[in-house]
Amino acid sequence: MDESLNLVLFSGTDDKLQAAAVLTAGAAALGKPVNIFLQYWALDAFRTAKVDRDHGLAPEAGAAGRVAVDALARAGQAPWAETFRQAKELGGIDIQACSLSMDLLKLESGDLCPLVDGVEGVTAFYLNAGNGQIVFI
Amino acid sequence: MDESLNLVLFSGTDDKLQAAAVLTAGAAALGKPVNIFLQYWALDAFRTAKVDRDHGLAPEAGAAGRVAVDALARAGQAPWAETFRQAKELGGIDIQACSLSMDLLKLESGDLCPLVDGVEGVTAFYLNAGNGQIVFI
Amino acid sequence: MDESLNLVLFSGTDDKLQAAAVLTAGAAALGKPVNIFLQYWALDAFRTAKVDRDHGLAPEAGAAGRVAVDALARAGQAPWAETFRQAKELGGIDIQACSLSMDLLKLESGDLCPLVDGVEGVTAFYLNAGNGQIVFI
Repeated sequence: MDESLNLVLFSGTDDKLQAAAVLTAGAAALGKPVNIFLQYWALDAFRTAKVDRDHGLAPEAGAAGRVAVDALARAGQAPWAETFRQAKELGGIDIQACSLSMDLLKLESGDLCPLVDGVEGVTAFYLNAGNGQIVFI
Repeated sequence: MDESLNLVLFSGTDDKLQAAAVLTAGAAALGKPVNIFLQYWALDAFRTAKVDRDHGLAPEAGAAGRVAVDALARAGQAPWAETFRQAKELGGIDIQACSLSMDLLKLESGDLCPLVDGVEGVTAFYLNAGNGQIVFI
Repeated sequence: MDESLNLVLFSGTDDKLQAAAVLTAGAAALGKPVNIFLQYWALDAFRTAKVDRDHGLAPEAGAAGRVAVDALARAGQAPWAETFRQAKELGGIDIQACSLSMDLLKLESGDLCPLVDGVEGVTAFYLNAGNGQIVFI
């Protein structure tokens, strides 16, 4: 259990980001270090201008999925960004933007919300991950 | 090879569930323990009322994908639920529903098909996984 | 860092394949062996007849994503197949087609582009992976 969990976040829909946030929070609660690497549409979702907006759901969610997620929001359950914020307070979580995806989306560090700790390349990601688990979401 | 394989199933389309079933069956055939954690649309697909229905394909499948999968069904190849059933007969496979997703989708244990062995939280999932491989599908 | 990275490629959109190519190239640059197992729509994308075509983007990419990716192509950045080609020149990368997916899509070895080294079953994939990281994309 002492090895790190290393999440490559690619998808930018609210349901996948919430799944990622729950996996992160659970690992943090167990004292398992978590390194997060933001690419493509997940990185786009962590922009200050977008982080608290509606990011849609996976296409398969359908109308029933939309109803379920809206009900959750009305019940006051934390959206994914808030789950990440709470998990970061437990410590041991590092969130890095992929430098190639920053270029692709023409983003600067100043465009990213405060949840993001920095920008790094894929090599740095692997060196931090070591032989820990790597999960692509 | 003796470490466990730990699958977080999120997606509920027939193609991804079949891919997950094949990875599960292959691991079981090699005697590798498999822990499965059902979230969101994958959990929804394991409801008794839905498990044997058509769950669609990933959007990228397109018309050609639909034709291929329909041909497979006509050829009598096992759909994913049957592949999971056969794999479970080999032993070493545990399928758990994510308690948070159960709440989100307003499901009770009685709503789930007999393939599902129980309901657990993300912490229990990590404790079972240990340092084994974690795969998100 | 000496353990292998084992990628199960399922998705056939250009953005996910590019993410997979970057993860592969980064691992190869660090001397980390990479085993790639092509299933479903990713396998379809590695056909000689399709490998250099447009494969679309994940549905969540939206119009802004399309603009970003088109701009990248105009800037002369390598599409995913070229990134895989360059990474293979570094050595340590083996790309295998899943035999079950070959049957599903009615493909023969001769249909696949030269990036693909062979066809194997899921058992061979696990035996090569050992206790290395497994990532599903």
